[in-house]
Amino acid sequence: MNPTTYRTLDAAAIRALVAGLPAIASRLGGPPAQWRVREVSDGNLNNVFLVGGVKGEVCLKQALPHVRVDPTWKMPLDRTFFESEWLRAVQPLAPGLTTEFLHYDPELYVLIVESLSGHTVLRTALMQGARWPGVALRIGTFVAHASFGTSLLARPFEDVFTARRLFSANLALTRITLDLVLDDPYRDHPRNHWHDPALTPIVLDIRSSAATLLAVENLRRRFLSQPQALLHGDLHTGSIMSTADDTRVIDGEFAVYGPIGFDCGMFVGNLVLHYFATPDNAGRQATLHDIAAFWHSFHEEFLTLWTSHETPPPGTLRPLAYGPAARVARQRFMNEIMADTIGFAGVEIIRRIIGYAHTADFDIIADPRQRAACRAGALGFAYHVLEHLDEIRTMADFLRHLAEQGRAGLHEPR
Amino acid sequence: MNPTTYRTLDAAAIRALVAGLPAIASRLGGPPAQWRVREVSDGNLNNVFLVGGVKGEVCLKQALPHVRVDPTWKMPLDRTFFESEWLRAVQPLAPGLTTEFLHYDPELYVLIVESLSGHTVLRTALMQGARWPGVALRIGTFVAHASFGTSLLARPFEDVFTARRLFSANLALTRITLDLVLDDPYRDHPRNHWHDPALTPIVLDIRSSAATLLAVENLRRRFLSQPQALLHGDLHTGSIMSTADDTRVIDGEFAVYGPIGFDCGMFVGNLVLHYFATPDNAGRQATLHDIAAFWHSFHEEFLTLWTSHETPPPGTLRPLAYGPAARVARQRFMNEIMADTIGFAGVEIIRRIIGYAHTADFDIIADPRQRAACRAGALGFAYHVLEHLDEIRTMADFLRHLAEQGRAGLHEPR
Ligand SMILES: Nc1ncnc2c1ncn2[C@@H]1O[C@H](COP(=O)(O)OP(=O)(O)OP(=O)(O)O)[C@@H](O)[C@H]1O
Ligand SMILES: Nc1ncnc2c1ncn2[C@@H]1O[C@H](COP(=O)(O)OP(=O)(O)OP(=O)(O)O)[C@@H](O)[C@H]1O
Repeated sequence: MNPTTYRTLDAAAIRALVAGLPAIASRLGGPPAQWRVREVSDGNLNNVFLVGGVKGEVCLKQALPHVRVDPTWKMPLDRTFFESEWLRAVQPLAPGLTTEFLHYDPELYVLIVESLSGHTVLRTALMQGARWPGVALRIGTFVAHASFGTSLLARPFEDVFTARRLFSANLALTRITLDLVLDDPYRDHPRNHWHDPALTPIVLDIRSSAATLLAVENLRRRFLSQPQALLHGDLHTGSIMSTADDTRVIDGEFAVYGPIGFDCGMFVGNLVLHYFATPDNAGRQATLHDIAAFWHSFHEEFLTLWTSHETPPPGTLRPLAYGPAARVARQRFMNEIMADTIGFAGVEIIRRIIGYAHTADFDIIADPRQRAACRAGALGFAYHVLEHLDEIRTMADFLRHLAEQGRAGLHEPR
Repeated sequence: MNPTTYRTLDAAAIRALVAGLPAIASRLGGPPAQWRVREVSDGNLNNVFLVGGVKGEVCLKQALPHVRVDPTWKMPLDRTFFESEWLRAVQPLAPGLTTEFLHYDPELYVLIVESLSGHTVLRTALMQGARWPGVALRIGTFVAHASFGTSLLARPFEDVFTARRLFSANLALTRITLDLVLDDPYRDHPRNHWHDPALTPIVLDIRSSAATLLAVENLRRRFLSQPQALLHGDLHTGSIMSTADDTRVIDGEFAVYGPIGFDCGMFVGNLVLHYFATPDNAGRQATLHDIAAFWHSFHEEFLTLWTSHETPPPGTLRPLAYGPAARVARQRFMNEIMADTIGFAGVEIIRRIIGYAHTADFDIIADPRQRAACRAGALGFAYHVLEHLDEIRTMADFLRHLAEQGRAGLHEPR
């Protein structure tokens, strides 16, 4: 933090800041005094505002020196820098699937992007019953392009090492992922919480299952030691805004190089949470389809990028061999991503139910006993997945288990 | 390079430089004018001098703006910075197994370390028939301590990410490894060369074997994408100086985070080169024992570091689970290192016979036909190993194949 210039901006200060940025000011139109400034912060970490004029609107995000919802939890401001770098890296790779980058202020830690005022946060849309089959497909496309394009398959290793260096300075947010996703839930920690006593026996089972704990150890190692591609790092359904036809990934402040299956797993895990929160069978079926569609689209597009070139891709890892053996090798790589996807989906589900940061999905269930049962179903499913990770070898296996546990309802602690 | 201060030092300039460093000057003893300055450069890259006084001697290494043996091949000076950072990182982890760090000059790119004037470069000693069974054991210890101590098992991830950032700027030397070890030999490239026509059919076999090329692709990916620990990066028998009782690893300028099996494989590969260059059976048996001893010592010491603590190791990857399942998981990790070791040994052997930088090992064979046959034996062995990497599952398998091909002599191209 530069103490001489950083200050938390209010509506007047935002107006003044944007007024000094001619390209953005003219995008809004009209005199600054008439711009509407609306706070829309609903996440845990940052202040977010929409600034609208007669012609257009932009979205302004500013880091606070602490967690927005907990001022005692200090946090470095530079997370907005990493979000801005993430956006600049992936926007050209996945056109139309992120917001447009407009401005970054390194002293105020302010990022300005296009406003998505007609879009809804995907988690909210799902809770309202939206059925948008295109979203999962587009997120598959997004992950395929963003990960392939920042990997050694597409770029000389010098570029990749340089990008890794930049994002591996994102220590504070990587620490949060490690602690909240891959550590706290597996031990007694004051940040964990759950209200429903029905969950406690499952939590105790999870914490005493050697197979589960070893799976988590392995995922932790992979998260920190497989810098395959630039990850979004927090690709849950709250980091996606969408309409039926247009889907955007936002909020890349957790960006870090890591295993591609981490992003896939976050997204799948959050669809599974929605699945267990959905009361009706038709809704659940739709979510099963979304997960399958996401994986299929990611898998196909990634392989297409890898193989469709007349000439080999320009990265350091250009192929040396072709033909059937090369196909097998590529499939092995995709299977590794799939295994990571399944594993990271498991830990994401668990931490969203018993860790620090829960999700709203289950709030649509009015009856507390039914809500507890649905949470227990999700938690038991994730436990089952992590405990049997070696046996769940394909996305089809994963979906079959999900459909079964979804039918079975309440988890019976073993 | 800072053009105002960098200059290539001659004997007089070295004397003046050291005279200005009181701690080192007093270590040498006597007036600077009486210090002996001897050039001992024998590597490809840098100028190396020994500076001796009445009391003691030091070794001074200076980077040149090009490859020492090829002034047209330009090279950044900062490789000495990375060697110095490597030494500072590993010296405390593996006491007595490196040289002592004495001084680094960031403008002249000069590193000063203790002199090992009683020691011989291991490759030379082996060629002279030295039988020092302790060396391989000590190198096993070295790799175990240096790699464990710089890994996520021993250190918080913040430290590891910060160290990775530093060493991932070592782009020029990492590019050399990539090109010379993992790329050139597998295609037509002017840097490749071999005199013996007996080798040509094996080279053509290697380049048309899909299994071999895919193994190389995979090793390339692993080299760049498995930052498990700080590697030496060039751990051949020319980077080790030894007596019968005292062994030191030198020349860490290729240091980078990577797969631990890379260092193991470089060392094993160079022992295999010596094995095929050795005329008598007793000498070959001794080398087989050295390889086995190296692996055993590395493996045991690494596991001891991982498990011997009363409390878990302090790294981010502290264990979550204990007992038999944890033992299996650790063994899986060690097996991964073993597979890397075998693979990287294979590519190291190949590049040392058909690539840019050959080794002197085979020079002890006077008869050109026998020399060619021995080289062909080594090349054929490495080819066999890479082609059957999936079947060679243990170091014992590897040694059995080595003993067999060592007996069989000339490789019959398939
Ligand atoms: N480009 C945009 N256009 C319109 N609204 C947006 C835009 N970006 C974010 N928002 C709104 O602001 C909210 C917070 O944004 P964002 O998720 O980036 O903040 P955050 O504090 O980093 O959240 P988290 O705690 O989840 O990391 C979003 O949920 C959304 O409602
Ligand atoms: N500390 C030392 N004491 C005595 N002699 C040394 C010492 N360090 C290096 N030497 C001698 O100098 C030679 C070159 O040193 P070194 O291998 O570090 O140089 P290099 O130019 O980086 O070689 P390479 O091309 O193999 O990377 C060694 O082979 C050895 O003979």
